[in-house]
Amino acid sequence: MCARLTPKERLRPISGFPEWLPEIRAIELQWIDSLRRVFESYGYCSIEPRSVEPVEVLLKQGDTDKEIYAISRLQEEEDTAPEPAYGLHYDMTVPMARYVAANMNELVFPFKRYQIQKAWRGERPQEGRFREFLQCDVDVVDTREIPLHFDAEMPVIMQEAIEAIGAGPVVTGLNNRKVLEGFYSGLGIDDTASALRIIDKRDKIGDGGVASQLRAELELGDATIEQMLALAAIRGTDPAVIDRVRDLAITTPLLEQGLEELDFVLRELQRFPQGTFVADFSIARGLAYYTGTVYETRFADYPDFPTICGGGRYDNLVGDLVNRRVPGIGISIGLTRILAKLVREGRISPGRRGPTDILVVHTRGAPYALVSRTARTLRARGWRVEQYHEDRRLNAQLRYASQKDIPWIWFPPDRQDGEHQVKHSQTRHQEPADPETWVPREEAAS
Amino acid sequence: MCARLTPKERLRPISGFPEWLPEIRAIELQWIDSLRRVFESYGYCSIEPRSVEPVEVLLKQGDTDKEIYAISRLQEEEDTAPEPAYGLHYDMTVPMARYVAANMNELVFPFKRYQIQKAWRGERPQEGRFREFLQCDVDVVDTREIPLHFDAEMPVIMQEAIEAIGAGPVVTGLNNRKVLEGFYSGLGIDDTASALRIIDKRDKIGDGGVASQLRAELELGDATIEQMLALAAIRGTDPAVIDRVRDLAITTPLLEQGLEELDFVLRELQRFPQGTFVADFSIARGLAYYTGTVYETRFADYPDFPTICGGGRYDNLVGDLVNRRVPGIGISIGLTRILAKLVREGRISPGRRGPTDILVVHTRGAPYALVSRTARTLRARGWRVEQYHEDRRLNAQLRYASQKDIPWIWFPPDRQDGEHQVKHSQTRHQEPADPETWVPREEAAS
Repeated sequence: MCARLTPKERLRPISGFPEWLPEIRAIELQWIDSLRRVFESYGYCSIEPRSVEPVEVLLKQGDTDKEIYAISRLQEEEDTAPEPAYGLHYDMTVPMARYVAANMNELVFPFKRYQIQKAWRGERPQEGRFREFLQCDVDVVDTREIPLHFDAEMPVIMQEAIEAIGAGPVVTGLNNRKVLEGFYSGLGIDDTASALRIIDKRDKIGDGGVASQLRAELELGDATIEQMLALAAIRGTDPAVIDRVRDLAITTPLLEQGLEELDFVLRELQRFPQGTFVADFSIARGLAYYTGTVYETRFADYPDFPTICGGGRYDNLVGDLVNRRVPGIGISIGLTRILAKLVREGRISPGRRGPTDILVVHTRGAPYALVSRTARTLRARGWRVEQYHEDRRLNAQLRYASQKDIPWIWFPPDRQDGEHQVKHSQTRHQEPADPETWVPREEAAS
Repeated sequence: MCARLTPKERLRPISGFPEWLPEIRAIELQWIDSLRRVFESYGYCSIEPRSVEPVEVLLKQGDTDKEIYAISRLQEEEDTAPEPAYGLHYDMTVPMARYVAANMNELVFPFKRYQIQKAWRGERPQEGRFREFLQCDVDVVDTREIPLHFDAEMPVIMQEAIEAIGAGPVVTGLNNRKVLEGFYSGLGIDDTASALRIIDKRDKIGDGGVASQLRAELELGDATIEQMLALAAIRGTDPAVIDRVRDLAITTPLLEQGLEELDFVLRELQRFPQGTFVADFSIARGLAYYTGTVYETRFADYPDFPTICGGGRYDNLVGDLVNRRVPGIGISIGLTRILAKLVREGRISPGRRGPTDILVVHTRGAPYALVSRTARTLRARGWRVEQYHEDRRLNAQLRYASQKDIPWIWFPPDRQDGEHQVKHSQTRHQEPADPETWVPREEAAS
């Protein structure tokens, strides 16, 4: 069924499936806690949809089929009814849309949720692209129209989240699909979807590449292409940037609506430091489902590194599943991508190799029961405590504490009427202590 | 590639893949937090190995092949080199063993880790059995012998974990593989592995069924079978139970070692209420890899419900991957199984539908900027705050707060020189308040 692996191959990393040592995993856990705190501070609740969906639901979004991992039982029993093909989800948005559609009557709308979950994509691994990764999403879905309030709230939550995990500085580009579509149709372009798809490649193939594709595929004239590229070149942090689009002298109701929406969002973001948010009319976002505001965030220091957060407004993703209008808006943070990059750049200080505050040593004199009881007493008072697991020479125990950066070493008495002692690993200060009442000096002083 | 699904089918639950509404997910998250706190209080660190392993590594454990979900890229590209077959892990132990083996030089030993992660099994769903489930494991792995200290620590951590999530009362049965193997070989049985496998079915097929299988498959005589069943029938909470095994008058060094180990563990557990831990010589644990102490925990109130925690000592699982002796011991908590059962039995009080403490309402008089600023001020002070997202009649906003059980409603002033007011949803008490300084009355009083 599969080629036999050598012992070494069995232990080899699998490309695109990252794993961290405990000291980096400790940071990842801290980040997850911080993100959760930020998301909950805005009232978003957690959901965790199953990891698999029918392949048909996953494919609904368009040209993502080659990225899907299908699952199959290794020994499918022949007497069971055939099931639809299932695949691992490749993002949080599609499963969320299905979850909301399936639970319309049980949820309170507007439904505000966050998800911090693994996703899988079968794409070829390269820097910043993983096959298994942690994705952190916030979305709002409503059965009524979603007010612009949320178009401004999404990038604010995202910015706070990035700051909470210390992953900044970042730059978030903003655009509005209505601006692009309204502008293109104002230029007389019918196939605005294809125009968007080609413009989205500007990063990779440049203005020249975009121009020749627009000419070849959509048979557009030079004047039209020039106008499209003029729009894509506009970028600015001030709401005045809106007027530079109006200066191009194209007017359609859709374009005007998009500009007004973008104006509202930009004004709401003016309280952030200059350059944090930038209107950027070249941003199209590849995904077909966006219908309004779109966001794209990059590291300020690594502008060529792929997008680390992205999102936008989608009016039809949920509604299509239930045959009514259920608009949504959301943003997604690529946690694994961010963590891997900052580790690679040496910008992460590893955490400790374990959570232990105190090691209770176990030396010849002290009976096992006393060592255990001491550890239990300290643990009951909220300390994270390891009891050294065997009676062994002290040096080995101290080396263990030092390898794991355990800040306090506890010595139970080695005779009946002896006293407990505690030593601070860094300062080497040692003093008598009672496990029932001990607090470290710093805290005792405060 | 797959049959077309009707719109209704697209939204249907997938059997064996549980999903929770936000109010139950809130409980699950609380549980995860509590388990993590317990595990860390003993100094265990978190790791999160990738979700997939080479199928060959997963199969290593024996007769679990039919439970494995293999993964495959939906559109495998032809120009890529063939990869080994990968499958989703079905427990935390095998990936942990592979992770430890792959990182031998980077980890501190004894390596104490916990994992709270999804696992997948392709088995037929039934009550208590899921295809996707959360598993919570603690294990210790060492390059030296693992002292009995950990045989006693594992069930203590497990018991504390169960109490921390309020899933008790539970009963944990204890046994030691050396007792069974030593006893069987003392009876002259060569194929002790098959004897273990058959004895393990006693729950399902009874003494009669076990006897006839032992007779048919292993050609054992009646006297031998009688002795085996006599051992399996011994059960007791007091260390004196050990002597009842000795009364059966079989003696081998392995048996004696097993009894001494069990005696140590039972004595360490005597401080728990009577009946919490029970020596039970019928427990064999299906998995082939256990070599010493084994554990099996069930709900006290649902004795026929499958095991909710289980584990034991395994001497060769990690070592086999690195060709040296690397023993381990661990225990696993079936979080999804426990949660699903307690939800089904009506023993879970759902949490709130969202984490929000305060809803800042948005009514005609108050400008958007003021509403936003009020929400921001409260949030900066640590409150979880939703700003109602549009200017709308108050009743609709209060209904939203009530549906989501939001405890406080905040009214920004509706005129320049007005004052903020805050109302407690339950008591309906309303009073003036300043977003910069407000604290709820209970806290203010304390």
